[in-house]
Amino acid sequence: MKPKLEDVAKLAGVSKTTASHVLNNRGYLSEKTLEKVHDAMETLNYQPNAAARQLFKQKTGLIGLIFPTVSNPFFGELVNYLEYELYQRDFKVIIGNSLQDTHKETDYLNQLLAGQVDGLILGTHNQGIAEYKYSHLPVVAIDRVMNSDIPIVESDNYKGGILATQRLINAGVTRIIHTNGPSSLETPAQRRRTAYEKVMTDYGLEPHTFTIDFRLSFAEKKQRYNELFEIYPDMEAIFVSNDVDAGIVMSIAKERGQNIPADLLVVGYDGTELMRNMVPELTTIVQPIEEMAKVAVDVLLKRISGTKTELEYILPVDLWEGETSNR
Amino acid sequence: MKPKLEDVAKLAGVSKTTASHVLNNRGYLSEKTLEKVHDAMETLNYQPNAAARQLFKQKTGLIGLIFPTVSNPFFGELVNYLEYELYQRDFKVIIGNSLQDTHKETDYLNQLLAGQVDGLILGTHNQGIAEYKYSHLPVVAIDRVMNSDIPIVESDNYKGGILATQRLINAGVTRIIHTNGPSSLETPAQRRRTAYEKVMTDYGLEPHTFTIDFRLSFAEKKQRYNELFEIYPDMEAIFVSNDVDAGIVMSIAKERGQNIPADLLVVGYDGTELMRNMVPELTTIVQPIEEMAKVAVDVLLKRISGTKTELEYILPVDLWEGETSNR
Repeated sequence: MKPKLEDVAKLAGVSKTTASHVLNNRGYLSEKTLEKVHDAMETLNYQPNAAARQLFKQKTGLIGLIFPTVSNPFFGELVNYLEYELYQRDFKVIIGNSLQDTHKETDYLNQLLAGQVDGLILGTHNQGIAEYKYSHLPVVAIDRVMNSDIPIVESDNYKGGILATQRLINAGVTRIIHTNGPSSLETPAQRRRTAYEKVMTDYGLEPHTFTIDFRLSFAEKKQRYNELFEIYPDMEAIFVSNDVDAGIVMSIAKERGQNIPADLLVVGYDGTELMRNMVPELTTIVQPIEEMAKVAVDVLLKRISGTKTELEYILPVDLWEGETSNR
Repeated sequence: MKPKLEDVAKLAGVSKTTASHVLNNRGYLSEKTLEKVHDAMETLNYQPNAAARQLFKQKTGLIGLIFPTVSNPFFGELVNYLEYELYQRDFKVIIGNSLQDTHKETDYLNQLLAGQVDGLILGTHNQGIAEYKYSHLPVVAIDRVMNSDIPIVESDNYKGGILATQRLINAGVTRIIHTNGPSSLETPAQRRRTAYEKVMTDYGLEPHTFTIDFRLSFAEKKQRYNELFEIYPDMEAIFVSNDVDAGIVMSIAKERGQNIPADLLVVGYDGTELMRNMVPELTTIVQPIEEMAKVAVDVLLKRISGTKTELEYILPVDLWEGETSNR
């Protein structure tokens, strides 16, 4: 016979109401209570039905979106599409920019656990938040590794890294530098680095990855990229891990009297609508931002309704052929 | 003797509870009831005290932000700062991008009237929403004319228009075109146009303002700006009303074989951190985005607590001297 919520409550030594609260992520519950109930669910292999899940659940109609900052065009466009998709399905969105305040992520997660939002979509780069270890949370990550239970929506970062590096090698250069975030951040974007290093090695070329933290201010980034020009004075090409930074690199090259593409080739990453229209000459890898938003919303709504989902959704990328990659 | 809420209710022919709901923008009220109570308030010159204002008021801790789209760097940076300021004061923000859906503004206004958010900060370009005629709403507009009772926070658009036009005239050109939104949209940004036309006329030059709707897609904008190049083949300079469009103009000029600044001078508007770092060569008018956000939040919180505010806050602008304005 299938185990019921009563059985879970009994085994965990809590009331049925408490067990339901755990199931529906409602109210402030102690870590001990959460663990006891989750352990009991696992032991009994309890599969909640929709009714049990909705028992004490009151919809707020609100979804929290936590991203580093909407002032970056990639996140600006992503949040714009997410808000659009969710609004079509009667959800309004609460937005938290986590770049200046890493506590925000915990704050919003607590809001979720207290039932003040119905779900979260996260694209922050913070790490090791203990609360995520509780399973079944209505949370979806975009381009970020959380724990083994939180679904991730991402574009094909490995393929993007291959396309970018191969494009530069096809242009006839060999001294190609790659810039990326610290490898301690477990983001799928690190696969761009893996792909770059693989292609370089396959061609017998030496990979050089230059680490630069996404969270630096513009002034700090400029200083760091100027260091890059000092460290690799004879570089012929740079594969930059996002278009805003590619723009900074292009502007620094100009300041230093270098011509792009005559003296230096540049390939960026992200391919937002803004960049493709304002700086169409920049060769870049286009992430399918609108599609990523749609998939993330679909997956979150499944998760909220207790429907099973995949754990990883990888969407295809494209190469935008500008003039910065042609000699 | 000072009139009391009871007197207002009596004159309007409603209960004290209803009068209080009108005062505090709580619950769904008919237009007729709102009008009766507002008329009575005006007739009696009723000045609500803080206690009357808070009588039935329950704080939600949520502020609605309605802007065209956070995918535009100006609104992206503005929303980022607004969210930061409000978070410091224990408010979370609901964000609505109104560009693709003009009903959103009405929707969020109804939410406000129903007490589901504590206040609104608006920067949309929609017009003629009848609901705003009710006074005392906790609403602040950024760079947008609403009605005579809603405070506006803006930067000095007239001064910005003067600075931009004067800069181009100083560079020695005379055939200067200005682009701006349709004059039917009552935005303070129209003062840039007024200033441009004033300076041109003062110098005995003919002003030409080219109208382009902010709400067009990138593809439509490109087509429209290509028309601009066809209509004014001998133009020497363009003063573009925002930096994203200035970027598009620069990219079109390049496509058409024109060099900037040798063949065409360009001055933009907004001066976001993103543009100043990615395209530092673009001369532009810098709006004090962070300061505008701080003032808007201050004014909104005053408005929520029933404190009197000014009706217009004009913040200073700066000229960012790039190379696109020098021959």
